[in-house]
Amino acid sequence: MSQFSEDFQTGLRDLMRWRRDVRRFRTDPVDEALLRDCLATFALAPSVGLSEPWRIVRVASPAARAAALANFRAANARALDGYDGEKALIYSGLKLSGMRDAPVQLAIFCDEATRQGAGLGAGTMPETRRYSVVAAVTQFWLYSRARGLGLGWVSILDPARLCRDLDIPDDWALVAYLCIGWPEEESATPELELAGWEHRRHHVPVESR
Amino acid sequence: MSQFSEDFQTGLRDLMRWRRDVRRFRTDPVDEALLRDCLATFALAPSVGLSEPWRIVRVASPAARAAALANFRAANARALDGYDGEKALIYSGLKLSGMRDAPVQLAIFCDEATRQGAGLGAGTMPETRRYSVVAAVTQFWLYSRARGLGLGWVSILDPARLCRDLDIPDDWALVAYLCIGWPEEESATPELELAGWEHRRHHVPVESR
Repeated sequence: MSQFSEDFQTGLRDLMRWRRDVRRFRTDPVDEALLRDCLATFALAPSVGLSEPWRIVRVASPAARAAALANFRAANARALDGYDGEKALIYSGLKLSGMRDAPVQLAIFCDEATRQGAGLGAGTMPETRRYSVVAAVTQFWLYSRARGLGLGWVSILDPARLCRDLDIPDDWALVAYLCIGWPEEESATPELELAGWEHRRHHVPVESR
Repeated sequence: MSQFSEDFQTGLRDLMRWRRDVRRFRTDPVDEALLRDCLATFALAPSVGLSEPWRIVRVASPAARAAALANFRAANARALDGYDGEKALIYSGLKLSGMRDAPVQLAIFCDEATRQGAGLGAGTMPETRRYSVVAAVTQFWLYSRARGLGLGWVSILDPARLCRDLDIPDDWALVAYLCIGWPEEESATPELELAGWEHRRHHVPVESR
C-alpha cells in the first residue's frame, strides 16, 4: 500500500522517461523564485551520515562563465582527438553542452572535509559523500524538469582547472557542472541516440548470487 | 510552462521529503512483479555517454546474505571503535542497516570497463560513470518509495571483501548495497536526527562567482 496515488506513480515514471539531458536552451531568464524552489530540493536529498556535503556555486560573472566555457572547449577538442573515422565525424557534430546559452549555470561540489555527520557511513566508502551530492543533483534535475525547466550535466571539463579558475576551496571536489534554462524543444529520445552515437538497452538485467 | 500539474509537482516534493533511508523492515516478501516495475526505472536514468554502466546483483542465497551481513558487522564494529564518549554511546544504539531482515537485497555495481557509450563524456571525469549509477539508484529509490516500498542504502561495508565474497568481475566497482522491503513504520524525520546524531540544515546556501 502506498500513500501516493497510481496517477502520481505513473507521472513519476513519465517524468523519468521524459527527463533528458537538455543542451539547447533559450536565452530568456529563469525566474529567481522558481530557481530557489528547485534548489530547495537539495535539502531533501539523502546524504551519508546526514553530512549534506553539497556545495553550490553559481557561475554568474562574465569572467567566470568565459573561463568555464573555454575549459569545456579545450576538453572537448581533446576528446574529439581520441576518436577516429565515423565516431569522430559523429562526435564533431554533437552538441554536448549548453554553456554558451544557458542563463543559469551551477558548479556543484562535494565538501570532502565536512565535519557534519561525524564521518558516519563514510569510513569504508568515503566516496559516498560524493554520491550524496549526485543523489541531490538527481532530485534537483527531476524536480526542475517537472517545473518545465531544462537541465544539462556537463562532464567534459578539467576539474582542476575549473576549481582554480573559480577559486574553489581545496577540500571541495567538483561533482557536476549544470546548465539550466528553458529548453528549445522537448524529446523523449536522448540526443546521443538521435545522432546515432549509442543506443539504450531498455532492459535491466539482474544477476543473482 | 510545464506539462506536469501543480499537484504532481507538490507530490514530488512530498515524496522527496518523506523518502527516508529505511532500516526497519517487515520480513514478509516483496511481490516479484512490483520489484521488476521498480527496477525498470534504471533504464530511464541518465548516464554519461549513454553508457548505462549499472550492474545489479541480487544477494539471495543464504551463503551470500550471510557473507554480506558478516561484512557489515565487521565494518560497523571497526567504525564504532573510531568514536569516543557520547558519540560512541549514540553510535552503538543506532540501527544502521536492515540487512538482517530485508527480504530483497541488491548490490549495485558500476562496470568501469563498459564499451557502451565509447567513453563519451568520461574522459576528464571518469567518475561520472559511477555517478550515473548513483543517479539510477536515486530514481529507483524515489519510485520504490512512491510504490510504498522501503529502501535503505548500506555503505558500512568493505567493498573489496564483498566483491570477493560475491565473485564479482574485476572491472565492477561497488556503488551501493540496497535493502528493500515493507517498512515497519514511516517517519518524515531521519533516524540519525531522531537519535541525536546530527541535524539537517534545511537551507541551501548558494555562493556566486
